[in-house]
Parts: sequence; C-alpha cells; structure tokens
Amino acid sequence: MAEEKKEFKRSLSHFTDRITADGSSGWPVEAGRYRLVVSRACPWANRALIARRLLGLESAISLAVADPIQDERSWRFTLDPDGRDPVLGIRFLAEAYLAREPGYTGGVSVPAIVDVPSGRLVTNDYPNIPAELATEWAALHRAGAPDLYPRELRDEIDAIAEDIFRDVNNGVYVCGFTRDQAKYERAFTALFDRLDALSERLENRRYLVGDSITVADINLFVTLVRFDAVYHGHFKCNRNKLTEMPVLWAYARDLFQTPGFGDTIDFDHIKRHYYVVHHEINPSGIVPAGPVLTEWTTAHGRESLPGSPFGQGTPPPAPPEAERVPPLG
Amino acid sequence: MAEEKKEFKRSLSHFTDRITADGSSGWPVEAGRYRLVVSRACPWANRALIARRLLGLESAISLAVADPIQDERSWRFTLDPDGRDPVLGIRFLAEAYLAREPGYTGGVSVPAIVDVPSGRLVTNDYPNIPAELATEWAALHRAGAPDLYPRELRDEIDAIAEDIFRDVNNGVYVCGFTRDQAKYERAFTALFDRLDALSERLENRRYLVGDSITVADINLFVTLVRFDAVYHGHFKCNRNKLTEMPVLWAYARDLFQTPGFGDTIDFDHIKRHYYVVHHEINPSGIVPAGPVLTEWTTAHGRESLPGSPFGQGTPPPAPPEAERVPPLG
Repeated sequence: MAEEKKEFKRSLSHFTDRITADGSSGWPVEAGRYRLVVSRACPWANRALIARRLLGLESAISLAVADPIQDERSWRFTLDPDGRDPVLGIRFLAEAYLAREPGYTGGVSVPAIVDVPSGRLVTNDYPNIPAELATEWAALHRAGAPDLYPRELRDEIDAIAEDIFRDVNNGVYVCGFTRDQAKYERAFTALFDRLDALSERLENRRYLVGDSITVADINLFVTLVRFDAVYHGHFKCNRNKLTEMPVLWAYARDLFQTPGFGDTIDFDHIKRHYYVVHHEINPSGIVPAGPVLTEWTTAHGRESLPGSPFGQGTPPPAPPEAERVPPLG
Repeated sequence: MAEEKKEFKRSLSHFTDRITADGSSGWPVEAGRYRLVVSRACPWANRALIARRLLGLESAISLAVADPIQDERSWRFTLDPDGRDPVLGIRFLAEAYLAREPGYTGGVSVPAIVDVPSGRLVTNDYPNIPAELATEWAALHRAGAPDLYPRELRDEIDAIAEDIFRDVNNGVYVCGFTRDQAKYERAFTALFDRLDALSERLENRRYLVGDSITVADINLFVTLVRFDAVYHGHFKCNRNKLTEMPVLWAYARDLFQTPGFGDTIDFDHIKRHYYVVHHEINPSGIVPAGPVLTEWTTAHGRESLPGSPFGQGTPPPAPPEAERVPPLG
C-alpha cells in the first residue's frame, strides 16, 4: 500500500521496471522466478491478486502475504513461521527494497514483485501490474484465461480507469486523510458524483467496458468491496453506504461471487489494517464490529444483463489450498 | 452534555434539586423564573427541549442555546450577541454553576436549569427533567398538552427507560469512547440486541408504552435521530444504519415529523459538536458531509398502527420564532 501522508498525496511508485515477455527490460517473464508480495488489506495489491487469480498465474508467480498491521519498519512477514517469508527468507519487505537500492529510505509499498534468485525488488508500480500480468505474461496464462485488457478496448479502459483512480480509488483516501474541510468536501463530492455516473453506466450492462471483465472492473471492485467496511466510516465517505446504491451494490456482489474476486478478500485483514494502523484517524485502535458482511453472498440478479464474465474463457478453479481466505464471518 | 471520559463512565449529576409545584424543595414552579440552558447537539438536553415543546412550556421557561463547540471552559454563549446570554448575562454556563457552588470544579453539563433572579444553577439532573416538566409543571402546561408520564404507566415507562438508557442512550457513548476492544464489542452487542428488541416491540404499536407519546419515546428518539449522522460512524455503532432497520427508522421518522420533535433538531449543531469537540476520536476535526438528511421527512406509514401521538390532547403549535431550527440541508 502506498505511503500515506496527513495531507494526502499518493507517492509515485519508485521502482517502475517492467517484466516483459521478450526480456528486453532485463526482467524476462519466467515461471517460478518472481514473488508477488501483497497485503490482503491493500486495494492496490488486491488488483494484482485478482488479475493473478483470473489469469491462472498462481503457479507461475508465487505469493507472499504480509501482516495487515505494519510496524515502523512497514510491511512484515509476521504471519509466517518465525516471522520470515519462507521463499525470500526476509522478515520485512523493506529488505527487498534495500537489496535493490542500498540506502533506500523511501516508502515501502505493496504490491511488490521481487526477483527470487537475487532477492531484489523488481517493481512496486501498482497501477501497471494487472495490465502487465494480462499481456506480458500471456504465455503462462491458464487455458481459458480471459482477456482482461483487450487491445481494441484499451483506450476506453484507460480513460475510465483514470476517472476511477482519481475520484474513487484515490478519492476515498483524500476524504480520509485531509485535514482541510474544503478539500474533504471537494473529494467527497467528486467521489459520489463519480459513483453516481458509474451506477448509471452499469444499469444496463454487466461490466464497465466491452462484454466481459476487464482491468477496469478490477480497479473499481477493490474500492467498492472496502467501502462499507472501511471507507464509509473511517474515511467519512458517508453520503450513503454501498448497500444503498442498488446498481453498484449488485455489481459489486456479482464480482464478489465471481471466482477470482471474493476469494481474494479477507475482511479481517482489511478492517484491522485500516483501523489499527491509522492512529491519526483512529487513535483508539478499536476495530468496528460492523457491518454485516454475509450480505455479500446474496443474489444480485445481474446474470440477465448483457455481458458474460469471462467472454470466450472460463472461470478459474478454486484458489490453491494455501491461499484460501476465511469464510465471511 | 455530561462530562465524557476516555474510558467512558458517565458522571452523575452533581446538582439534583427539584423544582416542585408545592415549593417544598425551595424551588417553586413559577412562570418566567427559570431558564433552561441546552445545547441542541446534546441528546440529554434534547429530551428536556422536546418535553418543553410538547407541554407548551416555552413561555413559562425561557431557553438559552449554547454554542455546539465547547472550549476549555465548557459550554459558552458565543451564539449570542457579545457572546453573552441576554437573560443571565453570563458568557459561560460554568458561571451559573459557580454562583451555585463557589469553587466548584466538576463537570459543566447541559441540560441545566438556572434560577434567573439569583443566576444560580438549580439542577443539571438530566434524567429527571422531562418527567418533572410533565408532572410538577402541570399548572403551566398549554391547553391540550399530552400526559407524557401517566401515573398508571410509570413502572412500565421507568423499566423500559432504564433499558434504553443503559444499552442505547449511554451504550453508544461506551462504543465510541472505550479503548478496550472487548468492552466495545460488549456494548455494541448490547446496543443492537436492544434495538432489535425495540424494533420487535414497535412493529405492531405506534409508541413504546400505552397508546400515545410518553417520556420513553422521547428518550429513545434523541439517540435514534443522531444515529446515522454521528453514532454509526463516529462511535462505530455500525452493524447497520438506522435507515436499515425498517421499524425503528419508520418510528423515528414518525416522531421526527410530529410537532415538538423534529423542530428541536439542528443537525448542523449535532454534527459539528461531536466531530469537532472529540479530538480524541476525530483528531482531524473534519465534519462528514453525509449522510443525506432529507429522508427524515419521507412517509413513514405508521399512522395506521394502534396509538395516537397526543392521546386526548393536541399537537403543540409551531415553535416561537426565536427558537426555529434551520430546515434540513
């Protein structure tokens, strides 16, 4: 998760190397070579996780899940035996950053892709990871993998993704972290205006762009799934809950119930991260007991809309045993 | 509003004198003699305000409205010209406390009833003020005033009021102020269990006790009306919003739309008080822009249930011009 400041300004990714099919970047696509480090709390990491699931890259790119609670050294592997990632052998993600750039003192963010042989960070360039998994990694996709970033739709996907990033994905953080009432109100208005526009767009079509799931849907989903559990209260995005926006709520449930989406979500990690780590917003560290989460599995009724989740492809199989998330509480 | 501590424990009222019809307490009921000091933010003061409106005591007991934002000297009359209450001539409510007890260093709370001639506080005994207005002040009630505390129903009213006080009125404060996760979760569970039980009780009857409005309804209303605007987010009472509990939401709107209830409510005062004053919960001081409040005036459909708001009585006329609250934003 990118570094968060009081006057909220999202830091740019510091390491933007690309892993390419042709190896021209110096980082060739290769099964088993790279490790994806995520926090299940983090929406940016969640994008990479969902793309990896939908594309069937689990065996090609292994997964490290950081503790949702960072300490002053940032993301750590305290969920693993001896507090050490079993593949990279490190205790803190920062170690991979330092292996890449000795003396590095910048932010340590997830998602991060680490080169296993050298232990060096390759990239923390969260905006581009899903599309790169969808394109550069095509040779390693599972049979039946969907096309998440179809060439003929890229302009449309990029345009809507930019709006979603500015007003929704990042907008909720501006609402939550600013200490300027006017800035908060501007971000709040832009957020709900955008959600209203997206509701309208999704009223008669199942997915945002084209006829099946694309990275645009992944981008929107990761914020919607955290909305009522965190952003509505903790970040004061409270014009209404997601459950009070019928189209978006049905859309979000449809995705949640699609293999590759809901099976990446750990609400316990999500809630504990935001409420425990952000002392400056929630000094008590109390983690709210609500909202009721079992409604995520209720019928959404969107099967009859134009569009099918995987286009000519098929749903991914269940996640590997070691990557299963707990059932909804 | 009673003093609030981090490990939340509501302070007892320090001054519990009673104003009596027969004057046996030393404080006789007398038109024009006493001044009720409230904050429109405060649920405890809101009870007294509603009882005064329903009973038509506006001309008998004058009203001072404190600024919703306290400073280190507590409630102040910064909404009045020169920051001074025009009747009592004081800048801080604490001055009336000190006139009553020189050297007093305890909490300064609203509602407070002050003896105008002497400038001395008579009582800050918030739990008992509504019932005393309903009984001891009977000779000064308007024609058509309802019986808010009928003798034959007092045991039932007192019993339900105790449950509501513990689990709801005070329960939301425990949720909001504790720093102990287990204590929070106990209060959260007790709160929503109680709200569920009250929902069930109110499903087939319009009011809590008997056939018309009593102080029990006033007690429940003052917390419900603040629920989504403050307690759901700020105090983490977020199993669901009031708007997601159909019976209680209709009940609350029914009361809100009844003369004497909604016309005492200033959501701006309510939101600014909680979000600005409680630094320890909301260090940024940002006041949320949501939720949408205009839904308070939508149809509630409870007119057909058994019960009528004022029994044999009539609704109060509109509030005096000087006491009007702003329309819903």
